[in-house]
Amino acid sequence: MSAELMNGTELAREIVDRSAERARILVAETGVRPCLATVIVGDDPASVTYVAMKRRRCAKAGIESRLVSLPEATTTAELVAVIRGLSDDPSVHGILLQHPVPGHIDERAAFEAIAPAKDVDGVTMWSFAAMAFGQADGFVSCTPGGIMRLLDAYGVDPAGKRAVVVGRSPILGKPMGMLLLARDATVTYCHSRTVDLSAEIAGADILVAAVGRPEFIKGADIKPGAVVIDAGYNPGNVGDVDAEGARERAGLLTPVPGGVGPMTIALLLEQTVVAAERSAQR
Amino acid sequence: MSAELMNGTELAREIVDRSAERARILVAETGVRPCLATVIVGDDPASVTYVAMKRRRCAKAGIESRLVSLPEATTTAELVAVIRGLSDDPSVHGILLQHPVPGHIDERAAFEAIAPAKDVDGVTMWSFAAMAFGQADGFVSCTPGGIMRLLDAYGVDPAGKRAVVVGRSPILGKPMGMLLLARDATVTYCHSRTVDLSAEIAGADILVAAVGRPEFIKGADIKPGAVVIDAGYNPGNVGDVDAEGARERAGLLTPVPGGVGPMTIALLLEQTVVAAERSAQR
Repeated sequence: MSAELMNGTELAREIVDRSAERARILVAETGVRPCLATVIVGDDPASVTYVAMKRRRCAKAGIESRLVSLPEATTTAELVAVIRGLSDDPSVHGILLQHPVPGHIDERAAFEAIAPAKDVDGVTMWSFAAMAFGQADGFVSCTPGGIMRLLDAYGVDPAGKRAVVVGRSPILGKPMGMLLLARDATVTYCHSRTVDLSAEIAGADILVAAVGRPEFIKGADIKPGAVVIDAGYNPGNVGDVDAEGARERAGLLTPVPGGVGPMTIALLLEQTVVAAERSAQR
Repeated sequence: MSAELMNGTELAREIVDRSAERARILVAETGVRPCLATVIVGDDPASVTYVAMKRRRCAKAGIESRLVSLPEATTTAELVAVIRGLSDDPSVHGILLQHPVPGHIDERAAFEAIAPAKDVDGVTMWSFAAMAFGQADGFVSCTPGGIMRLLDAYGVDPAGKRAVVVGRSPILGKPMGMLLLARDATVTYCHSRTVDLSAEIAGADILVAAVGRPEFIKGADIKPGAVVIDAGYNPGNVGDVDAEGARERAGLLTPVPGGVGPMTIALLLEQTVVAAERSAQR
């Protein structure tokens, strides 16, 4: 048996193309061009590369991107003030704080300075609760949101399935579980303190690996025919799942790269356009 | 084997006594008396009884209680305006909206009118996310918060345990799972769409029943020695767990009544005092 690969690159392209078309229509009808403001603190090379890539994608989709680059020594108060300014700026529709931020900054305080209506990266507490409570006007955290779209595109209905989420970060594991729960999966959260992870994984119809440790999930643990979502992205294009082993057992599998990664950016762009559309309607 | 019963009545009394002492000190030192405002819409007999009981408990603990009783025909906008008024009133420290509210009211909109600093019942989206993200300044949803205190009092450390929460309501099941996850349990959410509930229950070291269906959880499904928390409270003092069957298999079990119920009110009173203390410090 060999798993079918879930083509995130192709699905992401469709979403970005549709978003670009919506952006074009919005400009034509209202003169409003969607604008995503990205805030980056310090000059971590990986973050700089990632931000540059997002800006190129924005440009291609007809989304204006504004970059606010702050020095490494920026304080929490300074960062919060900058983000509040963007929250109050009517020409900005979406705000992305590139994370991780330097260790001396209170990342949560910075996230919370993002107005919920502009939280197109889905990182605020309000957005998290909106995902958990199924509030339609909230934005989803982009990676979990992108994963839900991949499941839909491949005809995977989570209802009644046993879904296991490995990882519990505020922007990935926790919202992932809440989105799956909202779609009626029986959801289990596993993490570093889980005692028998292999047994939990073996029971998963849908497995989402979101731990950030290369090849942490062993192929032999995967339930035959399971849907395996690898949300890890470790140096050298290595995911959190032992891809070779998973390919032999899974029914559906996201490749790394080309699975979850492109979907994350596609959701970010799409949600920026939605935020701009909503702002134009007000 | 016969399960040890977890005495919520006794633990709740200790918490209420300590809260009363803190309230007394607060009045003596600052002149501020903790005040809980309760809003009730309509005249559902069970709600009226429950509210009256909470008011008596407040009085005993030296907490002022203010009752806002609104007619059944109250609109969402009217209710939101009343709650916003209480949120802005500096003499009110805690706000409780008695639920359920009549069906024509948008309960979520009403909850969200409660200022987070006064959300002593832990029902707002902000409070939910605070529980999920371990934010120390948030108030917990009272029933799940009371359950965590019961676990602590009986020496049950959730870390590494398999915890199964049956039910996923915004004020009970969902925050319950998040609080257990924050304490490092491996958490599974089960609900009406779960396919093999018996198998999920059989794997639970800690089981929380929060479905609101009398004796829904069968004793025979319970893992021998498990900690069984019955958060159900159905007519006739019947819980969500088959108590007789559970007593034979569980290690620890909350009785109904006298288990979770008193803890819920104790947490409400304690959090009202904490809110008043914080307000006096500002």
